[in-house]
Parts: sequence; C-alpha cells; structure tokens
Amino acid sequence: MQILGETIIGQRSLRGQAGDVFALAAATGEQLTPAFGASTTDDVNAACELAEASFDRYRQLSDEQRAAFLDAIAQGLLDLGDTLIDRVHLESGLPKPRLEGERVRTANQLKLFASVLREGRWHGATLDTALPERQPLPRADLRQRRIGVGPVAVFGASNFPLAFSVAGGDTASALAAGCPVIVKAHPAHLGTSELVGRVIQKAARDTGMPEGVFSMLIDKDISVGQALVSHPLIQAVGFTGSRRGGLALVAAAQARPVPIPVYAEMSSINPVFLLPAALSARADTIAKGFADSLVLGAGQFCTNPGILLALESDALERFVSAAAEALSDKTPTTMLTPNIHGAYCNGLNNLHKAAGVTLIAEGREAQSSFQARAAFFRTDSATFLGNRALEDENFGPSALLIVCKDTADLHNVAAKFDGQLTVTLHYDDDDKAIAQALLPTLERKAGRILFNDWPTGVEVSYSMVHGGPFPATSDSRSTSVGATAIDRFLRPVCYQNVPDALLPPALQQANPLNTWRLTDGQLAKK
Amino acid sequence: MQILGETIIGQRSLRGQAGDVFALAAATGEQLTPAFGASTTDDVNAACELAEASFDRYRQLSDEQRAAFLDAIAQGLLDLGDTLIDRVHLESGLPKPRLEGERVRTANQLKLFASVLREGRWHGATLDTALPERQPLPRADLRQRRIGVGPVAVFGASNFPLAFSVAGGDTASALAAGCPVIVKAHPAHLGTSELVGRVIQKAARDTGMPEGVFSMLIDKDISVGQALVSHPLIQAVGFTGSRRGGLALVAAAQARPVPIPVYAEMSSINPVFLLPAALSARADTIAKGFADSLVLGAGQFCTNPGILLALESDALERFVSAAAEALSDKTPTTMLTPNIHGAYCNGLNNLHKAAGVTLIAEGREAQSSFQARAAFFRTDSATFLGNRALEDENFGPSALLIVCKDTADLHNVAAKFDGQLTVTLHYDDDDKAIAQALLPTLERKAGRILFNDWPTGVEVSYSMVHGGPFPATSDSRSTSVGATAIDRFLRPVCYQNVPDALLPPALQQANPLNTWRLTDGQLAKK
Repeated sequence: MQILGETIIGQRSLRGQAGDVFALAAATGEQLTPAFGASTTDDVNAACELAEASFDRYRQLSDEQRAAFLDAIAQGLLDLGDTLIDRVHLESGLPKPRLEGERVRTANQLKLFASVLREGRWHGATLDTALPERQPLPRADLRQRRIGVGPVAVFGASNFPLAFSVAGGDTASALAAGCPVIVKAHPAHLGTSELVGRVIQKAARDTGMPEGVFSMLIDKDISVGQALVSHPLIQAVGFTGSRRGGLALVAAAQARPVPIPVYAEMSSINPVFLLPAALSARADTIAKGFADSLVLGAGQFCTNPGILLALESDALERFVSAAAEALSDKTPTTMLTPNIHGAYCNGLNNLHKAAGVTLIAEGREAQSSFQARAAFFRTDSATFLGNRALEDENFGPSALLIVCKDTADLHNVAAKFDGQLTVTLHYDDDDKAIAQALLPTLERKAGRILFNDWPTGVEVSYSMVHGGPFPATSDSRSTSVGATAIDRFLRPVCYQNVPDALLPPALQQANPLNTWRLTDGQLAKK
Repeated sequence: MQILGETIIGQRSLRGQAGDVFALAAATGEQLTPAFGASTTDDVNAACELAEASFDRYRQLSDEQRAAFLDAIAQGLLDLGDTLIDRVHLESGLPKPRLEGERVRTANQLKLFASVLREGRWHGATLDTALPERQPLPRADLRQRRIGVGPVAVFGASNFPLAFSVAGGDTASALAAGCPVIVKAHPAHLGTSELVGRVIQKAARDTGMPEGVFSMLIDKDISVGQALVSHPLIQAVGFTGSRRGGLALVAAAQARPVPIPVYAEMSSINPVFLLPAALSARADTIAKGFADSLVLGAGQFCTNPGILLALESDALERFVSAAAEALSDKTPTTMLTPNIHGAYCNGLNNLHKAAGVTLIAEGREAQSSFQARAAFFRTDSATFLGNRALEDENFGPSALLIVCKDTADLHNVAAKFDGQLTVTLHYDDDDKAIAQALLPTLERKAGRILFNDWPTGVEVSYSMVHGGPFPATSDSRSTSVGATAIDRFLRPVCYQNVPDALLPPALQQANPLNTWRLTDGQLAKK
C-alpha cells in the first residue's frame, strides 16, 4: 500500500487542493515524502453530505454486519505488517515494539466493539407492556432503544497514532453505534493516517458498507477542523489532545445554532499519593515503578504520573533517593514531534526557574535533538497551592513531588486539584483511614482510581473509564476507552404502540436478537 | 401548612431580601398573598455551599436511605391534601381533577426512582476480573460504577406545577442519583412551590438526610437563576420551559470556565401524520381524538399536537369537517398565566394573518379573561416550507394542518422539521409502506414515536423518553421522564486494584446489594 498524500471521501480518494502539507520525521524534524494535499471546504462538505446520506442505511444494518466491518478493519491493520509500523515509527519516533503492541490494542478495541454489537445489550432495549385495563387510564405499549446520533467528527491524538487516531477508540465506538465517521488526520502522522484510512476504506468496501461511512480530511492549519465541527450535519465530536485544542473545538461547537456533544479529552497530571505506610514498607519498589511509569513512551501518555504527593518522613526521603537513582539511569527517547519537544523543554525551564521548586534528579542527557530528558522536581504544598501554573500538564517525562505537612494538608491539596483522568494511591493496610478519608474527594476528581499500580497503561475492557471531570475532559459523563464508550454516540428513542412488524429487531416481541432486555422492570433474555 | 413567602436553604427558611414578588391568580390576574421575598446572591451562595457540603455524605447513603427520602416526599405531597390542590388551582387555573392526577403522577415518579434505587442496576456495576498471568501484560482488577455529578440546579415548568416542578422529575432523578438539588421556584406558582419545598424540607429532616440536600430560591427577574447556573459549585442543570428561557441557561452555562451539562426541555410542535388508509378507515374517530388532545389542559402540554400532516383526499376533508365540528364544541379554559394567554393570542393573530393559512374552526368563545379559545388552521406544504415561523410552537390549543400533494411531499416536509419531543402516525395496515419509509427520518426527529395514539400524556415508566433532538431539548442523549432519567445526573468512575474493604458496596466482591452486575462481559446477579 502506497501513501499518496490524498484525502479520502467515502470510496473516492483525491488530492486536496488547499496547499501542500508535510509529515515530519520525529527523530530529525525533516520533511517526509510525499506532500499531502490539504482538504478544501468543498471536501469537508462532500464528506459530511456523504456521511449524512449513508447514516440511515448504515445504522439500520444488522449488528453482525457492522461487527464484520469492525473486524475487517482490525484484520486490515494487522495485514499491513511492517509497512504500517515503519511509517508510524518514522513519524512518531515511538519504538517499534511499543507500536506493535499499540496496533494489537487498536485491533482489540475494534474487536471489543464488534463483540459489544453481537451481544446486543448496547441497544438498551426496554419494554413496558401495555395495560389496557389500567384505571384511571390505560397504559400504552412502550419500548425504548438507542440509536446513533449521526455523523461524528473524530480528531486523533499525537501520542497514540493508532489507538487514539484514525481507527482508534472514538472511530470504533462511533462506527459501532451506527454513526458514520469523518476523521481529521493528525498533522504529526499524516502517512500513518492515510495507511489506516485506506484500511477502513477497503474494509467498508469489502463488507458492503454504504459509501460515506468513513472519510478522512487533511488540514493545513485549523480551518478544516473548525469547518468540520461547525458543519450542520455533524452530530458529535471526539477529540484527544491538548487543552488548547480541545477548548477551541468546544468553543466552535458552542457557536453552532444547534448544540452537539463534544468529547474532548485534554489534559491531566494524574496525581499519585504515596501514603505513609506504603512508603515505609516499600519506598524502593515504588520509586522504581514510578521511574518506569514516568519515562514510558517518553512520558507522552495522557495518564503520565505528573504529580506525586507524600507526607514529610524518612521513608519519603528514601523514596526520593531511590527515585533519583532510578531516573538518573533512564535513557532519553525521541518525542513525537519537534513542537512537543520544544513545549516540553519550555515546561522544564519553567520548573527549573519556579520559586520554591527544586530539582531532585534528571535522566541521562539527550544524545540527539528532540529527545526528552526525564526530570523530577520537588516542592511543598504551600508553594504548589500558591502557584497554579505548577498544576499545568508538562507533556513529557517530568514530575513534581509535593511534600505535605500532615494528612489535613494532603487532603487540602487533593481537594484543590482540577479534574483528572486518574488518581493513584500507594497504599498499605495501615493507610486505611487516610485512604478512606481521601476517597470521596478523589472520586469527584478523577475517572479512574488506582491502588498500588501506575496509571500509564489503559486496559481496553468493559469497566475501563478513560475520562474524568474538566479539564481532563469536556464531558465527565463519558469514557473514550472501554465498552461503555459506545454510549457517547447514542440517544434513546421510545416507540409507543408501534406494530411489531415496524419495530426494530431489538424491540420486536420475539426478541430475535436474543439479547438481554428490561421488560416491566425485569432483566431477562426474552 | 402556611405559605410564608420564604426562601428555603437546607433546614432554614428565611425571607429573601431582594424585594417582593407576587404570585398571580390565573383566572383573574390578581396578586395573591403573601408577598414572597426574592432571594439574594448571598442566598444563592449559601444554598450552593450547603449543597456542596452535603454532597459526599448524601451520595454515600445507602440506596435504601435515599429511597426512603423519596418515598417520604411522595407521601408528604399526598398528605398535604386540599391545601396543595387549592393553591395550585388558584395559581395555575388548572382544573382540580387534573391536579389530583398530576399529584399522583408526581408521587409515582418519586416512588419509581425509589424502586430504581432499591433495585440497584442504576449503579452500572461492571467488573473485569484480574488476570495476573496474562501475556504479554497482566490485567488489573477493574470495576466501574456511576456516581452523582454533584449539586444540581432545577428550573420547573409553568404547565406542570407539580410533576415538572419543585418535586418533579428532575428533582426526583437528581436526588435519586445522589445529587443535592437547588430549585429556582417558578414565578407562576410561588405558593405551590413553597408548599412542595417544605414537604421536601420536612422529608429530609424526618429521614435524616444531611442538611443542604435541598434548597429553594425565589427570583424577582432572572438574576437568581443566572447566578445559580453560573455558580462554580453547580454541576448540572435541569430545565423545562420556553425555548428562550432554555437557551439563556445554555448560554449562561457555556460562559462558565468549567462546562456542565444543561438539560433544557424547550419547545416542540409534535407533528401528527394522518396516513391515507387510517384516514379512509376512521376519519371521524381520529378527528375526535385530535380535538380532545388539542384542548387538554388548555393545550398547555409540551406534547400538544400542534402540527398535522396529510395527503389531499376526500377522507382528509371528512377529517377536517369532523375535527371542525368536534372543536367548535370545546369550552375554553383558563390559561396558566396572563402572560401565557397574551402570547397565545399573539400566536393566533399571526396565524390568522399569515398568507396561505386559513382558519378551519375555532372552539367556543372565551367567557372570561385569560381563557384560551381553541383554533385549527390549514395550509399547504409549500406555504409551510416557505414560512419557517409557522414551525414555531404556539403554546396553547392551536394546531395547523399541512396538506401535502403526495408521499414525496410529505416526506420532504418531515425531513425539514426541527427536533421534536414526539411524532405520531395514524396508521392502518395499508399505510405500511409509507410508514416504513418515514420511520428512519422520524427516529432522527423525535424522542418518542407513537402509532394510533395522541402525544399528550407521558407515561412514567422504564422505557419512556421525554426528550429529543434540538430544539425540543438541548441534549438529545437524555430523557426527563422515566427511569433512565437518572442517567443524566451520573458519571462513571473506575476502580483499579482497590481493596474490597475500600470499594463501594455496589462493587464489593460479595455483591452485598444483590444486584445485577456485568462481570467479564456476563450479566448476572452476582
């Protein structure tokens, strides 16, 4: 499969006429071939109109048909072999074994949603039997199911060029929900995007999907993205990226005459609480785990542990020494883009200069441009609370330890955190009281709470929540990872006294999908 | 129970110091005693801070404890007897039998959510078992449940002074979800609001709820409402009312630094399709049903049938004659407020003057001020599509028949409708093809689709959807009536490797709530 630098609109591919844009090699910053043609406003309109035209047919396909489409995308990604991995590596600088793993995970996400479709509970089928004799008024036959909201715009992330991008979680859950998808390709991995986009295009063709179920646009600045979010036919937006980028899309959506949901996953510093008994028991082990988690993927995870909190103690000093030792041995790795590397270096400079903040340790020095050197800083709670800039995410392998005077101080800092994707506690049985007191606050702060683990690594499963209160995301009611991510692109419809022959299969009396339904308040496979 | 004109803040009552406001008698427009003291900004802050302070304790009560609170509110409403009904009748002009029915419905809503709590599925408990031996990476123990979003602001409706107001659907579902509620009392029924507010206040006290779980504010204009929606401690908004009012709250919420969900149910004209075979078979019956539905509650239902569509035919003319006859016999009734009556009369004037619109029939003349005279107008599809003002809701007993040339014309008009709460089809077996072709469009337009029924009358049940695409509501993912309304005030939280003793009961290994949970993708009561 060759990369042509083209926009994908349904089954067509065409060279965008809005000027050339180039992908860059992450390691060197050099322009890669070929040039990509940026999409025009006409291309945006064509993609949206085609998506709209396909929506009713697509959403009314059987669950099995849509599942087969998702499976075909998963298989197509695997079939691309090294062609894909080589290009992602070139564009992202991420190591190939990590990318192989990310590809498997991306395929598994698609397969999870295929199984969610085949299982059928996603319809949310709920039936209330007619009560014609009820007094004073009869009850009609009432049945609820959920349907897709309509065409969805997806903005992929720089840091997961496969799992949170063209065929990533938002695309998988939207396609599963019966929503056509239009992806705005991420400028940091245009070639990867085209390869994956063509896999989806081919899978749609091979499995007989209506044209328009998938398109992919290329932006030379932010105009295509803005036009997409503002387009009247777009019914929801999924985004993973920076806070600035996410808020711009939220603002664009708010300016629409008809509001639509925007699921922007933005920024998180993922506080880690090192509770006293846990630190006493295993400061060294926790320190090693921390150093490993911090530098994973050059620290470019949404769930990177950017803040640590602990009480003053000897055990804490043992942790600090062990963490310094572990970190000082860490080899720097190439960041995703020269811009991200530049922003990271700026963030480090700010931390180096910040009053009341001291450097604990650094990783090994960078050997070439665009590599990120790990860094671990220290401050106290008063300094942290007095300088809200210290709460800004510094995307990359840097972390800040906040030393608290006592548990009240710890709790006070916790209560003042912004919303987070994750909060972690390192915990021993003797920490029970302090953990119990913290938990109600932490539940309000984060989408996921971990004990004795590290937040990097997001399992794709039924119960995962990758989301959280603002500014972690723009909509805490939802998750972008895991089976319940399908909910974000669905809305309920109720059918009153509709003849069986006109009901969707999920609601027909005979339960032809053989799925779980709630009938008169009772859950059963009938 | 006496009406004192007071603001309710937790267990306190106080006279608001921002000036006097008065409820009006619907039938006469006269000011009613006592004067109500409008709440101040300090009152707003006090209510919000008390709500926030109660939130963690309230949401962590057992399901049974919150259920008992809801049941106590329901019983308190019934116990108020004629004191309540007399005041609601005075303020709203609605007939007492209707208000008795509305009170039962309101109590049943509260009891439905009590049973939803006791049943336990609302937690959304989802478990993924740890797989420590999995290759290449182990899987952690992961468990998801849902928790309340935080304090909720509720704005009740004029047209359901009980069921969509102080102790109405939004309050019931928010309290069930574990969210403290602050109600902004509707100016059209301040006395009713205080009576109901005191019932909730007493129920909270009697069942040992934390103070702050409920407060009620009084507004002299829109400043209290705006301050409430803008308050940083408010986490969601429920509103039922006009499009103008709803959009103002949406705008206020958008101006917040931290976005929150706003569930505004606004306006709907509830199109009714009179399909040809159904009209042929029973034009008279349909006409009588239409006239009854149109004038129910002086037409002041969100689901009032404001638009009818049919193909040119002799049967249609039979329907028109029968509807005219049925309507001409309808007695006018008092509208909710003098303002609403004035707006209705303006709407009628506009319809009388609109080019291409003719009057079919009117109800009996009004016998006193503020009564609504029913009216039924007629136009053709071209006129309707050329004058979008004809799609504006005229709140009251007026409807417009759109005569279409053929099924393509009918479908074209349907496709151009704004979002609706309901769409209805009058249908016979021979209409199957046309209904089948319309359904995919109608599913995208409305939250509820009815066959051979009338949209007025919203069942409180598991499968009801009272919601729909904009501008029917500001968020089509949700319903304000029915058991799934609890979802709007919940967000998911995932627990990774959390010790059993620190997990919430819904997620503990032994399933102490004995509720349905999804474990490794399998639904079971274990």
